[in-house]
Amino acid sequence: MTEILFYFDFSSPYAYLAAKRIDGLAARHGRTVDWRPFLLGVFFKENGGRPLTEYPLKGDYSRHDFARSARRHGIPFRMPAIFPRPSTLAMRAALWIKQRDRARARIFCEAVFDAYFQHGRDIADAAVLLDLAGDLAPALAEGLDDPALKALARAETEAAIHQVGVFGAPYIVVDGEPFWGNDRLEMIDEWLTRGGW
Amino acid sequence: MTEILFYFDFSSPYAYLAAKRIDGLAARHGRTVDWRPFLLGVFFKENGGRPLTEYPLKGDYSRHDFARSARRHGIPFRMPAIFPRPSTLAMRAALWIKQRDRARARIFCEAVFDAYFQHGRDIADAAVLLDLAGDLAPALAEGLDDPALKALARAETEAAIHQVGVFGAPYIVVDGEPFWGNDRLEMIDEWLTRGGW
Repeated sequence: MTEILFYFDFSSPYAYLAAKRIDGLAARHGRTVDWRPFLLGVFFKENGGRPLTEYPLKGDYSRHDFARSARRHGIPFRMPAIFPRPSTLAMRAALWIKQRDRARARIFCEAVFDAYFQHGRDIADAAVLLDLAGDLAPALAEGLDDPALKALARAETEAAIHQVGVFGAPYIVVDGEPFWGNDRLEMIDEWLTRGGW
Repeated sequence: MTEILFYFDFSSPYAYLAAKRIDGLAARHGRTVDWRPFLLGVFFKENGGRPLTEYPLKGDYSRHDFARSARRHGIPFRMPAIFPRPSTLAMRAALWIKQRDRARARIFCEAVFDAYFQHGRDIADAAVLLDLAGDLAPALAEGLDDPALKALARAETEAAIHQVGVFGAPYIVVDGEPFWGNDRLEMIDEWLTRGGW
């Protein structure tokens, strides 16, 4: 049984909502989840595209739907006043921690999501990220601009897009089978129960 | 209890899949469905956008997902070799029948969907549409180019986009609450069961 791959961008409301449920869903099927941040903006730059909220009509719908989808599952959610925010630094911080302690990175990722989508904090601000990193902050502060870390972050995003085929967030891979969108968690649950179809 | 409004374009695979389940879903909640064809291409012309299958990466994913979503519910599906097809004539034919007999129009709409997404027939060909119309064919053949019918078709699409806010297909409205996408049928079911949230 392989790990479930959870691709997300810290600036995606639907990725936040999926982040709140993906581990529990996986656990019910005896699976674990590999949290894999990437930069959706790179896909947009390469292929065209922009945040959902900026499209005519779909923008209003998506704002309504973020809140409705959150309420459906009792997930706290407040649309950030400034949206989206660049998630480059947050991704780099998450990878830095993940290289050292995967469980800790998982906790950090959720803290970043909560900071942005519950408390409206600026996750593009290094000071906010360091605050969320707790006792790791001093070492993380030194490591954040490491060229090797930057290169790793670029490579992870490139691999997500060009090897896995990720074009949106969240994007979840179960035994090679791709699922795009928070609204596919029920389908993933059924896929795991039935062993595919 | 209001009718459920089912907005669809005859050239949308996800609308076809939703069409196969929406009446049954509604009936389980004592509701009926108003089938409302519109032209998604008009929205694309006004706002930008194109069929899912034409987007990088998302195109391949969507083709995979059409078939997977069909298999999930045991719905016959074969991706048409020529996709998409203009749905203007099919929409006009459906409206012509609907003006005379709503139940008959419902049956015709499903027949058009089946013709395209099961049998690969050309639903932009008037001869195919007349064949699907059965004994209504002679009268329909005379009515299809009626300027009043053309005006009605334009007005229906304009109202869908500019009054209801429809930007994709299927687009389903339940007591004023909008749901976009075949993958939201489960959410609609829950919405009807819980009476919203």
